[in-house]
Amino acid sequence: MSKPVDFIEVWRGDLVECVHQGHAVVCDERGEIVAAWGDPAAVIYPRSSCKMLQALPLVESGAAARLTTEQLALACASHNGAAIHTTRVNAWLADLGLDDDAFRCGPQMPDDREAREGIIRAYGSPCQVHNNCSGKHAGFLTLTGHLGAGPDYIEIDHPVQQACKAAFEDVTEETSPGFGIDGCSAPNHACTLHGLARAMAFFASAHNRSDTRSMSADKLARAMMAHPELVAGEGRACTSLMRAMDHKVAVKTGAEGVFIAIIPERKLGVALKIVDGATRASNAAIAAILVKLGVLDPNHPATKAHMFAPLPNRRDIVAASLRPTAALL
Amino acid sequence: MSKPVDFIEVWRGDLVECVHQGHAVVCDERGEIVAAWGDPAAVIYPRSSCKMLQALPLVESGAAARLTTEQLALACASHNGAAIHTTRVNAWLADLGLDDDAFRCGPQMPDDREAREGIIRAYGSPCQVHNNCSGKHAGFLTLTGHLGAGPDYIEIDHPVQQACKAAFEDVTEETSPGFGIDGCSAPNHACTLHGLARAMAFFASAHNRSDTRSMSADKLARAMMAHPELVAGEGRACTSLMRAMDHKVAVKTGAEGVFIAIIPERKLGVALKIVDGATRASNAAIAAILVKLGVLDPNHPATKAHMFAPLPNRRDIVAASLRPTAALL
Repeated sequence: MSKPVDFIEVWRGDLVECVHQGHAVVCDERGEIVAAWGDPAAVIYPRSSCKMLQALPLVESGAAARLTTEQLALACASHNGAAIHTTRVNAWLADLGLDDDAFRCGPQMPDDREAREGIIRAYGSPCQVHNNCSGKHAGFLTLTGHLGAGPDYIEIDHPVQQACKAAFEDVTEETSPGFGIDGCSAPNHACTLHGLARAMAFFASAHNRSDTRSMSADKLARAMMAHPELVAGEGRACTSLMRAMDHKVAVKTGAEGVFIAIIPERKLGVALKIVDGATRASNAAIAAILVKLGVLDPNHPATKAHMFAPLPNRRDIVAASLRPTAALL
Repeated sequence: MSKPVDFIEVWRGDLVECVHQGHAVVCDERGEIVAAWGDPAAVIYPRSSCKMLQALPLVESGAAARLTTEQLALACASHNGAAIHTTRVNAWLADLGLDDDAFRCGPQMPDDREAREGIIRAYGSPCQVHNNCSGKHAGFLTLTGHLGAGPDYIEIDHPVQQACKAAFEDVTEETSPGFGIDGCSAPNHACTLHGLARAMAFFASAHNRSDTRSMSADKLARAMMAHPELVAGEGRACTSLMRAMDHKVAVKTGAEGVFIAIIPERKLGVALKIVDGATRASNAAIAAILVKLGVLDPNHPATKAHMFAPLPNRRDIVAASLRPTAALL
């Protein structure tokens, strides 16, 4: 068991103020490790970084036959609750003949400023559709309807979650050591970082295979790359990095410092975890690894914004900023 | 140079999801280390945890002669920008014949929900008085007036900042290796964790001495303990822990994972730094150390709320929670 590696430093003045450690793995289509930092056997919760795995049963079951690529992107999204997200998820719910009450994700105040301030000005409260996972849950509801299953689709023994677990274990090629309850109340299965990178390499190489699962995986990755703004939102790392890579790589963040990448042109999968769970560090680390792999332009403004993220103070003076360590450069 | 120690774990389901490492030092009135975790020589930015040091020149110069204990508490505060804070700081400004424009801290949206939503509903923007550091800056302005100095009181060569640096170096008993610019644009001088704990022991033992600096230090610590709600705000660790300790210990958070404690009854000073900068972990770690020192009741609800902080999800299910490691128990 290797120790985690110093990934990201926070510099203020001439001194390092903070250090974020992490583990990372790059896998090829055979699931072999091409590059690793820290411990590939580290057990993690992928959190939202594995939403495309949780969407596999939706697609391969045929339940998604009439869904658009926008809807597939939303099924894999951790969105900002902006109007572009909630109008689409609400329309999807209506197509299913359901409303917000069918969700089991819980309400969340949107990260999108306009949406948030609109709710506050109306003396309102957020709905479940504002939850960053509402697209994933619309996917769960679609599969629930297809299977004719009961309404509590987030329970671990519900057919939807059993299908998610089976797909997760198949594609990570691991027996999950356990699950936790996610922010949106769905089960989240643990795996090793190697297992998560292996799963992402499965997605990255899916276009070369013609089985149903591979075709479903490829469809989901392409939907994410086609709609970066639906997968996260303006200013967010997922959205701006996918745009910066000209829609040729799918990336996805997960809570508590997880990030994955799916690189179809190279048939590579990437997974990383910041040990302390900091999103600022996982954003910077995935950008650094994508630059190192040659798929992200180091001079693109989005790269600089995340990899060397400035931390401006209350007068917009850049008093501190992030810097990847030599290990990632 | 000892390595940092695992301080706080995040547990989700049956697995550790995150780990936060840190350094901590407890000093007695002679500045000797009574207990330490990790590296006492670790160099840190104290950030807002040293506001009582930055307020020393205000008091010992005589500039604070007519200030109330509430104003002294606000000078040491990182407040929520609630009405109880901003009305007092605005009145203080008016006493000085100044208004919000005199500040150099920059505007900040208040953490206090009522204040924040009020600004949003009025389609307004926050003022500088809402900045969590506005009390410290009112103190700087008071000293500026007393000294007849210029308006840019946050510049490193301004008499106010020179006095702050001299007091900081005297009380930490160190030559600062450098400074950074803080979130509020004031210089923040680096020191070792030992130096910061030594300074806090100076405050904790000040009531036994009769020199001007010691009497000033004692006055500031007593003002903090007397007004926990002014030092932070409802629900915040500083406020609830000072109340839980029956106003007998002063504690203060600093950005990027710093926390200090001043324990007058034991003449002990405590300083800790979470290496990755996480506030959730510094809150938990200071509570654990205060329990270990016997000054905080392990069964008090405020102790449990921070030391074993639940991380509820969007449906208020406690899906994860913090746990101090054996090192802190």
